[in-house]
Amino acid sequence: MSKTNRKKGLVIVNTGDGKGKTTAALGVVLRAWGRGFRICVIQFIKAETGQWGEVKAAKKLGIEWHATGNGFTWTSKDTDETTARALHGWEIAKEKIAGGDYDLIVLDEFTYPLQFGWIDPTQTIDWLKANKPAGLHLIITGRGALPALVEYADLVTEMKEVKHPYKEGIQAQAGIEF
Amino acid sequence: MSKTNRKKGLVIVNTGDGKGKTTAALGVVLRAWGRGFRICVIQFIKAETGQWGEVKAAKKLGIEWHATGNGFTWTSKDTDETTARALHGWEIAKEKIAGGDYDLIVLDEFTYPLQFGWIDPTQTIDWLKANKPAGLHLIITGRGALPALVEYADLVTEMKEVKHPYKEGIQAQAGIEF
Repeated sequence: MSKTNRKKGLVIVNTGDGKGKTTAALGVVLRAWGRGFRICVIQFIKAETGQWGEVKAAKKLGIEWHATGNGFTWTSKDTDETTARALHGWEIAKEKIAGGDYDLIVLDEFTYPLQFGWIDPTQTIDWLKANKPAGLHLIITGRGALPALVEYADLVTEMKEVKHPYKEGIQAQAGIEF
Repeated sequence: MSKTNRKKGLVIVNTGDGKGKTTAALGVVLRAWGRGFRICVIQFIKAETGQWGEVKAAKKLGIEWHATGNGFTWTSKDTDETTARALHGWEIAKEKIAGGDYDLIVLDEFTYPLQFGWIDPTQTIDWLKANKPAGLHLIITGRGALPALVEYADLVTEMKEVKHPYKEGIQAQAGIEF
């Protein structure tokens, strides 16, 4: 194993239209927590709420968690508000990333602000290249990861829907999907 | 929401050649733990060890965890041992599933015993149909999920590799991939 391998902080992207993008990031959070990593999760679309299973868990585990969205999605009409919230989330993310106090940072649903241009993708990736500490693991989730993000990432997985219960009239289940 | 939706325990399959199959199951474990679910994880290929990040985490969280494999994989030459271990794992799984004491059970890498015929797939699925409590959520992970398993499942996701760091000489990272 070469020296560079030892401290390589991976940039991981979970994308695609299937389930499991955020969930796989949470699995890494659990694994990393098991090893005593310092972890920060920043969510870009979801609104602050203590109702999600993962937020309840994070609170119990002492994991830092920021939900910076307002629950609005890409179908939102209030784009000013949505853009402002995305920029606010990115300001928090930059501070956490550059500060060097974490081993793992998750930018959940961060592909959307980039994809919809609320945050400039080129500037963002340039900033990450210049400022991400070498040992920091970074996970970015969301559909439609831009080619520049895939190019920048070390590990990219596409979650592909094969079969989905909503289509058979089964609702999302608490504790499983949220 | 209809009545049947309320107590529906999902059968979830995470398959495909990409990363994130076990990891997404762990994410559901974290989420479910956050909601106070009773959880049991049974691993079919991995050997018992306290070294994995997820095992350390499970221990700290009080989550029941069984690793029933010997670390041998589908390339193993000692198929008797491998088969015996798979059957032993399946006996534990049956007891836990039928017992009704859990809200979520994960059968990690369970596709392999089925795929390689160490455990009979048809009998297994028939047994699950007859014995899985209606409210129990079941997650099965591993490559090459058989069509009968996909047919039985409610939610199937294929994790597809888009870009993988091993190909660029970067080793698996503790806390992130194990």
